[in-house]
Amino acid sequence: MKRIIYLLVGVATLAAVVALKTPASGQVEGDAAPIYGVKLPSGYRNWPLISVARVGAPVNDIRAKLGNDIAIKAFREGTIPYPDGTIIARLAWKQVVSEENDNAIRIVAEKRLPPDQVQKLLDESFVAGPAINVQLMVKDSKKYASTGGWGFAQFDDGKPADEATLKTCFGCHSPAKDRDFVFTRYTP
Amino acid sequence: MKRIIYLLVGVATLAAVVALKTPASGQVEGDAAPIYGVKLPSGYRNWPLISVARVGAPVNDIRAKLGNDIAIKAFREGTIPYPDGTIIARLAWKQVVSEENDNAIRIVAEKRLPPDQVQKLLDESFVAGPAINVQLMVKDSKKYASTGGWGFAQFDDGKPADEATLKTCFGCHSPAKDRDFVFTRYTP
Repeated sequence: MKRIIYLLVGVATLAAVVALKTPASGQVEGDAAPIYGVKLPSGYRNWPLISVARVGAPVNDIRAKLGNDIAIKAFREGTIPYPDGTIIARLAWKQVVSEENDNAIRIVAEKRLPPDQVQKLLDESFVAGPAINVQLMVKDSKKYASTGGWGFAQFDDGKPADEATLKTCFGCHSPAKDRDFVFTRYTP
Repeated sequence: MKRIIYLLVGVATLAAVVALKTPASGQVEGDAAPIYGVKLPSGYRNWPLISVARVGAPVNDIRAKLGNDIAIKAFREGTIPYPDGTIIARLAWKQVVSEENDNAIRIVAEKRLPPDQVQKLLDESFVAGPAINVQLMVKDSKKYASTGGWGFAQFDDGKPADEATLKTCFGCHSPAKDRDFVFTRYTP
């Protein structure tokens, strides 16, 4: 199932291994991901939210995109291409049923909806559960010139994903070339 | 449909109107919401993410909870009750189909899944669309003593929701009393 998620980012065209000696933004933590040499940026979990989304079965996730200050400014101002130093972090969690939430929702829903619709509403209501992984896009137009200026990384519980996984990243982002390879749009 | 969302927060027990003269955290913007006198905090859209969730049809939203620094610290450390000054912001957006995203997902999914499962995956994949509203919980154990220490507010496109809406907030949070009336759990 996890392989589906990895593959959802497509088929890459880059094979060169690039070592990132000077990270694009601030401190970094832990091991570098292969190919692009991207590390998990320190403090990324505190970055502002760009937007949220979800992917259906069998992936069944709820996901959030966070951005560093350069990213957030560019998203809000509609700057294309994104400036060097932009980092986008995609966090995904398994969607899980919350009985607590459902009980609260049910009380109110039962006053407004017929029973079958209440059940449908509850069947489709989820909260975020266990983390799946964190994926990063790091903009450095010179260093990553052969992949649209973007370096890609994926971390599973802090550990970088393998080269085979990262080779799939750029190809699938290519359809978004006119938006500098970024699918996500900022939602105020 | 919007009324469902309003009603999902329950039946309140408080009727008193409390004017919030000194906001719990920093600058505030615009008009105050009724009953609790809560204003939209300046800069809340830059706050870190607590977690994400979604509510099924007919609500069909994807939602994110953001927290100010006091909130984030308390969530991460498991501090119960939440300290005075805690503010939690729930942002919700209509879930919408993204043809761009679906096209990218389809390319990869077709290599891994039979056609009916590809369609199911796409049918259940959404991005955030138009904003629905922003709801706030503001902790002030003295000021809001009669509602568990929490003041509630809702803003629709920056405009505070009416008193009838806010009267529903506390009642529905009551089942979460042992977690200081907060349903959401932090997801790393």
